[in-house]
Amino acid sequence: MDFSAWMDGLQKRTENSLDRLLPPAGVAPQRLHQAMRYAALGGGKRVRPLLCHAAGELSGADPDRLDIAAAAVELIHVYSLVHDDLPCMDDDVLRRGKPTCHVEFDEATAMLVGDALQALAFQLLAEHPLAGDAKRQLDMLRLLAQAAGSRGMAGGQAIDLAAVGQPLSLAELEFMHIHKTGALIRAAVLLGAACGESLPEAHLAGLDRYAKIAGLLFQVVDDILDSESDTATLGKTAGKDAAQNKPTYVSLLGLAQAKDKAAELRGAAHEALASFGDKSRRLGELTDFIVSRSF
Amino acid sequence: MDFSAWMDGLQKRTENSLDRLLPPAGVAPQRLHQAMRYAALGGGKRVRPLLCHAAGELSGADPDRLDIAAAAVELIHVYSLVHDDLPCMDDDVLRRGKPTCHVEFDEATAMLVGDALQALAFQLLAEHPLAGDAKRQLDMLRLLAQAAGSRGMAGGQAIDLAAVGQPLSLAELEFMHIHKTGALIRAAVLLGAACGESLPEAHLAGLDRYAKIAGLLFQVVDDILDSESDTATLGKTAGKDAAQNKPTYVSLLGLAQAKDKAAELRGAAHEALASFGDKSRRLGELTDFIVSRSF
Repeated sequence: MDFSAWMDGLQKRTENSLDRLLPPAGVAPQRLHQAMRYAALGGGKRVRPLLCHAAGELSGADPDRLDIAAAAVELIHVYSLVHDDLPCMDDDVLRRGKPTCHVEFDEATAMLVGDALQALAFQLLAEHPLAGDAKRQLDMLRLLAQAAGSRGMAGGQAIDLAAVGQPLSLAELEFMHIHKTGALIRAAVLLGAACGESLPEAHLAGLDRYAKIAGLLFQVVDDILDSESDTATLGKTAGKDAAQNKPTYVSLLGLAQAKDKAAELRGAAHEALASFGDKSRRLGELTDFIVSRSF
Repeated sequence: MDFSAWMDGLQKRTENSLDRLLPPAGVAPQRLHQAMRYAALGGGKRVRPLLCHAAGELSGADPDRLDIAAAAVELIHVYSLVHDDLPCMDDDVLRRGKPTCHVEFDEATAMLVGDALQALAFQLLAEHPLAGDAKRQLDMLRLLAQAAGSRGMAGGQAIDLAAVGQPLSLAELEFMHIHKTGALIRAAVLLGAACGESLPEAHLAGLDRYAKIAGLLFQVVDDILDSESDTATLGKTAGKDAAQNKPTYVSLLGLAQAKDKAAELRGAAHEALASFGDKSRRLGELTDFIVSRSF
């Protein structure tokens, strides 16, 4: 199967598993459940689920287990988008080519959607058998909770808030992104691998190195895309970071150097995967695909 | 030890364990961590931690384990208060006698505080050993996630939103409260008991019956207090429900009948605990104490 067919298949599979795992729209409270489904279904590149499934190939993980882990990570991502789009945060009206959740429903509902999606993510990881033993599954839950919390994604958003209109150094920008987007990308990769056989320490260390590099790489690519694309192509408001005077890799480094950085991180990502041999094929292809969007 | 000393001791113990389990204010992102500590520390009756510890006595649970379970439940409760107080929800300025989190900090920070506290609650349940085997601990995580999510607390808040200005029947009011406050009260009781020895099925059924009754009872008492007290006594804005035209037990039943209902539920709560004998002493005393506030 070529990469593009693999990706299409998994994006459909992710949509189906989210559809199955989200509460039905007809169950009370209906409006909340409709809004949760509106936010989570029907769009998105599903980068984190793709990473989760690709990492699962390293450890021979059961695809049914990967569906659960991938859904949990994606629900955390979706909840963060819903909250991030609210007027008290980024105040955005367009997401994945549709009106944002608080525009389509209302602010209070959007806040509860985010809250409930976060709870659902942890519920999924707790109620489905995902690892050979329950102890390892508890470790997976801890990993996702840390990635989502104040020293992970939510913390990164707090740093981002504080950074609006501030001059940031490259190191400070990186510190923000390691939290804001990197922590959850890393969790997607590590949780995918954790659904299969135990990996030797050296392999786990390589994978963790890959996961951290990938998180930064995807952010650099996002910044490049945000500076080059228009709103229609992106499906979300383009040029937003510049308009809000938010520091980005492009604003700090310039476009050409940001692209150099992406190329360099891409090389390092492949290096970190080298010891896995052919099992890391999908993860390598996925990395290349994501980077190629920006060139 | 008399009940009042027991309660004082546990309230201090809860404050100490939250202080220890929350991220230090000096760790980045500092402002978020300061705001999380502002919201969670220094106040509150700690009803859920008290219930958790009292229920732990039924199964001989280790108090150190109960501290973790109690903190997790309390953090979910605190996060819900922080989000509930935001302008897009109840728009309240006073909580536990202090300015609400978004007034003291800002709206975006308050939203992230709630998000991060929820993640921390699940992290605590995943990273500390709480039950004899990890499988049971996964069940505890699932229970808390369900209680917090769209078919628990967050769902109850959605039902509450939809109910403003609507005529509700007593059955509809009860349906809302079973979700909004009942689910987390039930979780506090069941998680406390789960930290100790396995209980026989019949005892677990009795405890679940108690937990569900207690959730409703405390809401009836809250409604009575809200209708009778002033803001200074309550430490939060009094008479808010009536002002917002929200249905309450008092508005539906009248004050006298609401008090009759509280007395009746109190009797049923004690009945549900009968099979535990003296081990349920604290749970019984705590129930009586909470009810006595409203008479």
